[in-house]
Amino acid sequence: MLATELIARKRDGQAHTRDEIQFLIGGLTAGTIPDYQVAAWLMAVCIRGMTAEETAWLTQVMASSGETLDLQSRWPDVVDKHSTGGVGDKTSLVLMPMLAAAGCRVAKMSGRGLGFSGGTIDKLQAIPGMRTELSRGEFLDQVDRLGIAIVSQSAELAPADGKLYALRDVTATVDSLPLIASSIMSKKLACRAGRLVLDVKTGGGAFMKTLDQARALAEIMMAIGEAGGVSTSAVISDMSQPEGQAIGNALEVREAVETLQGRGPADVLELCERLAEALGVPEASRTIASGAALQKLKAMVEAQGGDVRALDDPQRLPAAPLRRELAAPRSGYVAAIDAELLGRAAVALGAGRMRKDEPIDPAVGFVLHAKIGDLVEVGQALLEAHATDERKLEAALAAGLQAYTIGEQPVAAPEQVKAIISPPS
Amino acid sequence: MLATELIARKRDGQAHTRDEIQFLIGGLTAGTIPDYQVAAWLMAVCIRGMTAEETAWLTQVMASSGETLDLQSRWPDVVDKHSTGGVGDKTSLVLMPMLAAAGCRVAKMSGRGLGFSGGTIDKLQAIPGMRTELSRGEFLDQVDRLGIAIVSQSAELAPADGKLYALRDVTATVDSLPLIASSIMSKKLACRAGRLVLDVKTGGGAFMKTLDQARALAEIMMAIGEAGGVSTSAVISDMSQPEGQAIGNALEVREAVETLQGRGPADVLELCERLAEALGVPEASRTIASGAALQKLKAMVEAQGGDVRALDDPQRLPAAPLRRELAAPRSGYVAAIDAELLGRAAVALGAGRMRKDEPIDPAVGFVLHAKIGDLVEVGQALLEAHATDERKLEAALAAGLQAYTIGEQPVAAPEQVKAIISPPS
Repeated sequence: MLATELIARKRDGQAHTRDEIQFLIGGLTAGTIPDYQVAAWLMAVCIRGMTAEETAWLTQVMASSGETLDLQSRWPDVVDKHSTGGVGDKTSLVLMPMLAAAGCRVAKMSGRGLGFSGGTIDKLQAIPGMRTELSRGEFLDQVDRLGIAIVSQSAELAPADGKLYALRDVTATVDSLPLIASSIMSKKLACRAGRLVLDVKTGGGAFMKTLDQARALAEIMMAIGEAGGVSTSAVISDMSQPEGQAIGNALEVREAVETLQGRGPADVLELCERLAEALGVPEASRTIASGAALQKLKAMVEAQGGDVRALDDPQRLPAAPLRRELAAPRSGYVAAIDAELLGRAAVALGAGRMRKDEPIDPAVGFVLHAKIGDLVEVGQALLEAHATDERKLEAALAAGLQAYTIGEQPVAAPEQVKAIISPPS
Repeated sequence: MLATELIARKRDGQAHTRDEIQFLIGGLTAGTIPDYQVAAWLMAVCIRGMTAEETAWLTQVMASSGETLDLQSRWPDVVDKHSTGGVGDKTSLVLMPMLAAAGCRVAKMSGRGLGFSGGTIDKLQAIPGMRTELSRGEFLDQVDRLGIAIVSQSAELAPADGKLYALRDVTATVDSLPLIASSIMSKKLACRAGRLVLDVKTGGGAFMKTLDQARALAEIMMAIGEAGGVSTSAVISDMSQPEGQAIGNALEVREAVETLQGRGPADVLELCERLAEALGVPEASRTIASGAALQKLKAMVEAQGGDVRALDDPQRLPAAPLRRELAAPRSGYVAAIDAELLGRAAVALGAGRMRKDEPIDPAVGFVLHAKIGDLVEVGQALLEAHATDERKLEAALAAGLQAYTIGEQPVAAPEQVKAIISPPS
């Protein structure tokens, strides 16, 4: 097989065989096919697309490019969840303890945030002492013992995806549904759960800006999951405004705990309940009132070396020295909140990173006091910014002002869940 | 400017500005934009195309990426010619002396052959002693003195094109009309003649297999030429069968001399006359009967150190030790000759090269004794193969047998010139 011939096939819009994909990805991983050939192929894929079959093969080839962990055969009841990312997305911190408290196994590998979207690992690490780098033995033991562990995704998991992603990032080939779907799902297939639910976010604060795009991505990922032997469902959820009220790592931990205490934002709770339903675990919603879900989170934090007292007493979480409210410039109804702009402003405050391995500040971020549909009076606080220095605080408040659109007409709050897609029985 | 943003623009089918193209090609030449980014951009160009304006800018940017030689301002009457390449194409060896004998300046830089298509420099070097690597001073002096010089294209001419071509070759991005046209024309604009004629070949032995493709390429190249201040015309010529009878370097020199002596194949002569007409020099056809064109070739060969006696006495040209005829397997009319197959068979004999810098053998090749439309009797010679060893000779004869199609019905010989496209007034 010649790389140039395979590139030409995709250039001309033809479909690859499984062997061809194996040849290309194997060559990339082994370094026998140079980056410039893979880059040309990626652009051809980006423009010409891939069939569902090709996409499933690509995912499987990437999933088996490094170490694998067949969680499904270890625990038939193991569940997993993936979010396509958004602003203020703390769903995993709430949902996974709920599922564990309802009797499912949770053995979750998560990533760090990149760009305007946060990551579960960064949020967990806002808890003092919390360890997310567990050995494989520690990880499995903890799931056996407590039913729940959330750890950093190993770099050895689907390393071909890491190489491919690095190349996509610098060749303008990130925006491709088959490539996005296979990248996400390769890591999910490498540590195969029995059931997986996808939280596909749509709107201004998500990567998929329209419902159609989100649905298309969900369907591709579900097909990959099914082809890989994982029962996969999807929830399409709203990201036209940030999720909940908190944006920023410690602030989101606090909000997650409040949600598990039954006093969190309704949208966060609703989303978690619907994700649990989509997984076939509707009883998970009862674990909040009973306190069982909060106990699971505490047990996990304690097992992973975190300071459990920080969950009961948020004063023990990292806190920013400067806090200032943004006053509404006029009275009216909140018509829109630019979630991506707030996400980027949070990154500028230090809550996130634009490049891998940049340090972040767990304390900084925003707490929103008004969301879409709310009636506000002039001068009333729209949000509170948490920052480490005056200059960044000012910039964050300016971004906040720009993010809010206030109009005269009443506006309905967006529906949090747009669609639920179940796997084929 | 960010390379990824420019790649994304082309990925999405948008047109570049001149500055953007300058940034990309400048970055490639300087090594500040890595190959993988250029490769992704090339694939996007290959699939999405380029406007006439973009193509002209790309050509101009490549033309000015290295040393330039403005022949046009030195000699207003300087003419140039380019062929898109074919099998048995010895047109330059005939046409350029004709033009010089008609009073035009000929200061031509030519390339070597690659793949199934030959190159003028390789043919000239079949003449014992012939030098094609002249210093710039020698080159210009000779044109001043004799009105004609044909030399090897300097590697310093349009070096960006060389880099881009090397990358296209390994990323399946050669087949793109804007990229093909700009590659050819960048070298023509770097040593700008006053008038240029393009010999765009079409058919099985050419890169453009169909007339429509050939016409499209001709029109793009003409637009580039005009935008670059060179009056450019084009002839679309037939390459459904090899040009003339000879394929192979010394054999083609011999045939070129015979044509200049007025006893060459009609198709070679006709093509040269039409190319001269397209350049606006119809009187060049008279230089054959007068002997002036042959004198120009001799003067040039002598000035460049070649053995002029080899032109009068072909015995002095390199000759292959083994020659054998291929007998017609049946009687009938020659319906088709697979020119690309014969071109590849000539390469296998050693007459050409598949990779740059491979050595070639000037002596080997084919002489065709029957062309399309000819009536042949069973056992009559279809061609004669010239080879250095028995194994290669056998392979060449087998390829020759495969290349000929003999049918029962009379077949018309193809028209040598399919179209002439003149520049806008």
